[in-house]
Amino acid sequence: MSVLTPALSPDILVETLNWRYATKRFDASKKIDAKTWEALEESLVLTPSSYGLQPWKFVVVTDPALRAQLKAQAWGQGQVTDASHLVVFTHRTDLTEADVDRLIARVSEVRGVGLDSLAGYRQVMIGNLVEGPKRATIADWTARQAYIALGQLMTSAAALGVDATPMEGLDPKAFDQILGLEGSGYATVMACAVGYRAEDDAYAKLPKVRFAKEELVVNL
Amino acid sequence: MSVLTPALSPDILVETLNWRYATKRFDASKKIDAKTWEALEESLVLTPSSYGLQPWKFVVVTDPALRAQLKAQAWGQGQVTDASHLVVFTHRTDLTEADVDRLIARVSEVRGVGLDSLAGYRQVMIGNLVEGPKRATIADWTARQAYIALGQLMTSAAALGVDATPMEGLDPKAFDQILGLEGSGYATVMACAVGYRAEDDAYAKLPKVRFAKEELVVNL
Repeated sequence: MSVLTPALSPDILVETLNWRYATKRFDASKKIDAKTWEALEESLVLTPSSYGLQPWKFVVVTDPALRAQLKAQAWGQGQVTDASHLVVFTHRTDLTEADVDRLIARVSEVRGVGLDSLAGYRQVMIGNLVEGPKRATIADWTARQAYIALGQLMTSAAALGVDATPMEGLDPKAFDQILGLEGSGYATVMACAVGYRAEDDAYAKLPKVRFAKEELVVNL
Repeated sequence: MSVLTPALSPDILVETLNWRYATKRFDASKKIDAKTWEALEESLVLTPSSYGLQPWKFVVVTDPALRAQLKAQAWGQGQVTDASHLVVFTHRTDLTEADVDRLIARVSEVRGVGLDSLAGYRQVMIGNLVEGPKRATIADWTARQAYIALGQLMTSAAALGVDATPMEGLDPKAFDQILGLEGSGYATVMACAVGYRAEDDAYAKLPKVRFAKEELVVNL
């Protein structure tokens, strides 16, 4: 469809984004229902990425024993164990010709086009990411992409009335070890706890702190 | 409000995210109305960031002459000039005690709390970002934060039925020069063209390419 009836009005969007906050205390008894979770998982899968490369995996941890181990490597923050779901965002630690070819094969499959028609697209990626200027800092580049997914997940969660807390305060290497990521080619970037706020979370009532729009937005 | 009526159903969220795509051709005659744009600007302002530091400025370029100059530094991509709005995402190139104090002052102002009660929060930020482990790669860290805003903007735009194209294919230093950012302490990370797709944009009809969910999501 080329014309979409807007899903939200501008007012409701702003209300929704004001409603969300970095939840401090989750209600451990409230679980996200299957249909809602499926949509949030889909928001991760559908996240746009540069060149469409999707240089990530999303590790969804529900096992309580694993969550307890992760909590110990995240400053003991209760969100790790109490939220309904914990998503650990990982990025590709390298980006090789094989990664590019994996995407090219997928494009060919999904769109039913020949590999030869994708040769130019393939070469642009190889030239920039595998052999070109981005090469030296490629792990950083893939990590940046993961933050797009974090943004898309948090906004999507808010739209579904689900709370979310982004978490950078964790030991990525310890997370990799606990999650069995070592040697997988993927490594932890950050995490996001997703679920429902506890009724007594005092942080829910605090006014949101943002700089004035005039300081953040420049019009030229 | 602590309980929000979900703004969207899971089905509509997924439909919305499937509707969006990296628009190749925008309809230059279609402008985003003031109310809708205000909400999208607000989605930028309300973007969550680590520690709440908001280490960014969003440069919204509407001036046609500037847009033409930027286009020349972005591989001549038509989205730069044809989309209703162009947002250039910039990040703080350094992060100093003054940045931390600016946030602390804002928290104190918005929440009406004394600076002394914020001393611990301040020290955690100083210890990690200004004097600690993040110091060496702080510009990269602030750049990552900007991608959260990119994600929030793209998801928000889709919810409002607005098209958006993320753009990394540009010369950040040339953008800085054109936008007068040199020496400002902020530098270009990437951009996003926002507006309405042209009816004849063939890319709108192509099936979306994502890896299978089983390859992207790991359940533990």
